[in-house]
Amino acid sequence: MAVADQNLHRAVVEHWVRLAVYQRLGKDLPQTAAAPNPLVVNVSARHCHLTQAAVEALFGAGHQLTPMKWLYQDGQFAAKETVTLIGPRSRVISNLRILGPCRTLNQVELAYTDAVALGFEIPLRLSGNIEGTPGGMLMGPAGFFEMNQGVIRALRHVHMHPDDAEFYGVNGGHDMQLKIVGPCAVTFDKLLVRVDKAFKLEVHIDTDEGNACNLQPDTPCELIK
Amino acid sequence: MAVADQNLHRAVVEHWVRLAVYQRLGKDLPQTAAAPNPLVVNVSARHCHLTQAAVEALFGAGHQLTPMKWLYQDGQFAAKETVTLIGPRSRVISNLRILGPCRTLNQVELAYTDAVALGFEIPLRLSGNIEGTPGGMLMGPAGFFEMNQGVIRALRHVHMHPDDAEFYGVNGGHDMQLKIVGPCAVTFDKLLVRVDKAFKLEVHIDTDEGNACNLQPDTPCELIK
Repeated sequence: MAVADQNLHRAVVEHWVRLAVYQRLGKDLPQTAAAPNPLVVNVSARHCHLTQAAVEALFGAGHQLTPMKWLYQDGQFAAKETVTLIGPRSRVISNLRILGPCRTLNQVELAYTDAVALGFEIPLRLSGNIEGTPGGMLMGPAGFFEMNQGVIRALRHVHMHPDDAEFYGVNGGHDMQLKIVGPCAVTFDKLLVRVDKAFKLEVHIDTDEGNACNLQPDTPCELIK
Repeated sequence: MAVADQNLHRAVVEHWVRLAVYQRLGKDLPQTAAAPNPLVVNVSARHCHLTQAAVEALFGAGHQLTPMKWLYQDGQFAAKETVTLIGPRSRVISNLRILGPCRTLNQVELAYTDAVALGFEIPLRLSGNIEGTPGGMLMGPAGFFEMNQGVIRALRHVHMHPDDAEFYGVNGGHDMQLKIVGPCAVTFDKLLVRVDKAFKLEVHIDTDEGNACNLQPDTPCELIK
């Protein structure tokens, strides 16, 4: 709980304050404040998801990932452990963060700028859909792990609880728009909706997208059907 | 002229083809085809503009920049020469391209992703407006050159001839929108209009913006007032 408090997202606090202020004023809630949950938009820097077998190949038999920072989605964490990704031309990205807990597949998510730096082309894919994507070599303190596939740019998406989907009038698989204001104002015209009872309302964009619109914790964002 | 032909932008050819086809069909031109000039959208990778004095400090007395590739704006070129940029934490970006011809000020234009890699914050500025911006050290084969200021992220903008400005109904200093379609569809909601008789119609976005929308030579783009 202490960890969760330290990581409290500004959008969550703003949502609470908005509700409280409108209640005190005795006024009807505007659309944004009437939403069942705050809209949290987070930038996913490059990272990987690994199987337990890959973690053991890289960090040693029996090694368990150590949570360093809890993410907004319940149970998800940035691990203390990082790996080095070696691209097809022997260029490397070091300190590639592992996100836990372990999954049933190995996947590296890069921005296109990262892929250009490594010197190869990666496809745009929905997370988990890695058939036929390029692979790469991972290096950890205890050894190497070769991925035959799984290096992608993740399709930008919004995680939604069914309550959120109902409020916005969308279903899983729909596209929405995400409007970001400010000096680098951008509207992301395609944003895939993913719905699950375990999800909290959260948009994930990558570092290219986050830097294109200069997303800051206090940047106003709006989901548009 | 041979060089210009090799660099012919796809948008220019498409514009010619569109005009010819509508003419053959004897049909009225749609809005895009009726524009006086093709809409060229180019991604500016990180680069610098230098004074002749800086070029001589970096490459030796009397050194002149050598054009490697002519750019879409008449007379502008990517030089054969590159420099190394040393950031405030001694991290470096090597092979930073110099754009010629020389100017009356020294300016480095980076994407935010580049600035994060170098470990410092840079402001969003209109090209040329560098008062109070951070500086950096440049290294060339003949020596170093210290910039006291001039490292910026360039404000995204569109170069327009007065004919283009009249067609779109805008003036210099106005903001337009640039719509990019495709799987990574994005609308850049702020795009500064710059008008000059010497300009050809061309949008400049940086690598963060170009990668966010995965801009390719055949990606359809639309300027919206």
